[in-house]
This record gives sequence, structure tokens and C-alpha cells, in this order.
Amino acid sequence: MDIKNKRLQWMRIAFREAEKAFECDEVPIGAIVVKNNKIIGRGYNQTETLKDATAHAEMIAITSAASSQDDWRLDDCTLYVTKEPCLMCAGAIVNSRIKMVIFGVYDKNYGCAASLYQLCSSPKFPHRAAVVGGVMQNECLQIIQEFFHIQRVKKDGKN
Amino acid sequence: MDIKNKRLQWMRIAFREAEKAFECDEVPIGAIVVKNNKIIGRGYNQTETLKDATAHAEMIAITSAASSQDDWRLDDCTLYVTKEPCLMCAGAIVNSRIKMVIFGVYDKNYGCAASLYQLCSSPKFPHRAAVVGGVMQNECLQIIQEFFHIQRVKKDGKN
Repeated sequence: MDIKNKRLQWMRIAFREAEKAFECDEVPIGAIVVKNNKIIGRGYNQTETLKDATAHAEMIAITSAASSQDDWRLDDCTLYVTKEPCLMCAGAIVNSRIKMVIFGVYDKNYGCAASLYQLCSSPKFPHRAAVVGGVMQNECLQIIQEFFHIQRVKKDGKN
Repeated sequence: MDIKNKRLQWMRIAFREAEKAFECDEVPIGAIVVKNNKIIGRGYNQTETLKDATAHAEMIAITSAASSQDDWRLDDCTLYVTKEPCLMCAGAIVNSRIKMVIFGVYDKNYGCAASLYQLCSSPKFPHRAAVVGGVMQNECLQIIQEFFHIQRVKKDGKN
């Protein structure tokens, strides 16, 4: 399988995590951590459910991967996430020494891996991750748009 | 009590959290979250103990404050932390909408609230925190230096 299809395969699994968030009325973002061709961590956004601003998909996936490894260092790991990481998650990627970040849709306003800043790959920090964006970006964007459409309909009481 | 003494009083409590980290062989950084003159969250660095790169003092204090409030929004809260926040923690401060950050020692290399970047107060993000650095900075620096001195002695087997 070529690298493009491999990435699509993993992103589909991260996308399933995003679908779990959708089902819980959370902004639908999902993430997995892959090491040696195996998923070692996964997570979906649970900010509202856990009432915790730090409970982003990437954070939960990183904590879960570290737990499965019994080591906070995720040097040889790749993080797949359906949306470009925010400031906090970009920092968690640097801190956990993740080797590569592959994300779905770009966040033009607040994305900190490529759009607003390139913090995951910045030489200013002691660890850097390679970053690839735009994998399955249409699906990853559509599920977020659908979520916010439903939220607006609920709020306004009309479609 | 004037504002300077008030800040010192709260920082002393954050410093006690740092001492807890020291006792656990963790880089000694502590944090508290204060709302309406009351501590609603606290935490100390537990990266090694929990084997989790996201387990910084600020993250634990923010999660604990949100839990005590049953709300991830910490709009009216002040975070006291003994060291300038890193990239990840600066992002968590923005995401949790904390109003003010008061920190001890500056982190000239990687601090993201004042030194390397001013991300907590950046107009690029939807929420901004006021930032004050240098409160109890000597003590906050000394405990970290002492920690690393002990680590070196342990490693080298000599003083």
C-alpha cells in the first residue's frame, strides 16, 4: 500500500473517533496515535462531556498512547487528527516528542501546526514534528459543518 | 492587603504545590486557580509519575478548577504558577478563558506567556489573559535549580 493510501486508512480511523464525538454532541474531532503500524492511543473531543477545556481529541489520544507505552515519550509515533491542532495541542505534540502529525482539515483562524503558526515544527522548541495537512479534508470539514448546522437549528428552533 | 502582597500570598500556595512535585522527584512546578478570593483548583507537575507529557502543573490545576466549577469556562479566574507557562499550557490558558496569569520565574528559552512568545495575551486568539511575571521569582527558580542539581549528583554519583 502506498503512503497516501496508508495515511487515508489511518485517517479513516481517526474520523471514526470524530463520529463518536458527534454522537455525544461534541465538536466532532477525533485522533489516533500510531506506532509501528499499530494504534496505541485514541481519543475524541470531550470538552463538554468532561467539562474540561483541555479534553481535546489530541490530548486524550496522547495521554492514552503514553499510558499504553508506560512512557510519556512518543518519539516514534505519528498522530492522526481530523482537524489542525490548536495552540494547546500543538504544545502537547512538542512536549510528547511526537515524530509526525497528519491532520485533516486546516483551521485557517486558529490552527497552530500550519495556518496561524507552525509551532509543531518550529526550530524554537527542543522537539519538532513533521506536519502534513489536508488528508480527508472534505469529510473532516463536512462533519464539523454538519455539527454546527445542527447546533444552530437546535438553538433557533428551525432548519 | 495591597495587590502585591495578595499575589505573594497566592504564589506561596502555588509554591507549596511545587514543593510537592519536588518531593516526588518531578521538576518542581506548582499552580493554583483562584476565583473570588478562593482556590478552586491546584496541581503540580506529575509528568514522570503519571508518565504523561500533558501532566503539567497548570493543566492539572485547570482541569481541577473546571471540575470544581462543573464548567470548562474559567473566565473570572486567575492562574498562579511558579514558572512561565510552556506552549501547551499557554494554549490551555487561552482555551479555558482564564482572565489572568501570574507566574514566578521566567523561562527565557521556552516560555510562551512572555519570553519566547506572548501567546496568552495575543490578539490572534479568541481569548486573552493578562500576564504578570516575576512574582517570587528567586524562590521559584531556586527550587528548580536545586532539583536539577540533585538530579545531576544522582546521575554522576558525586556532589
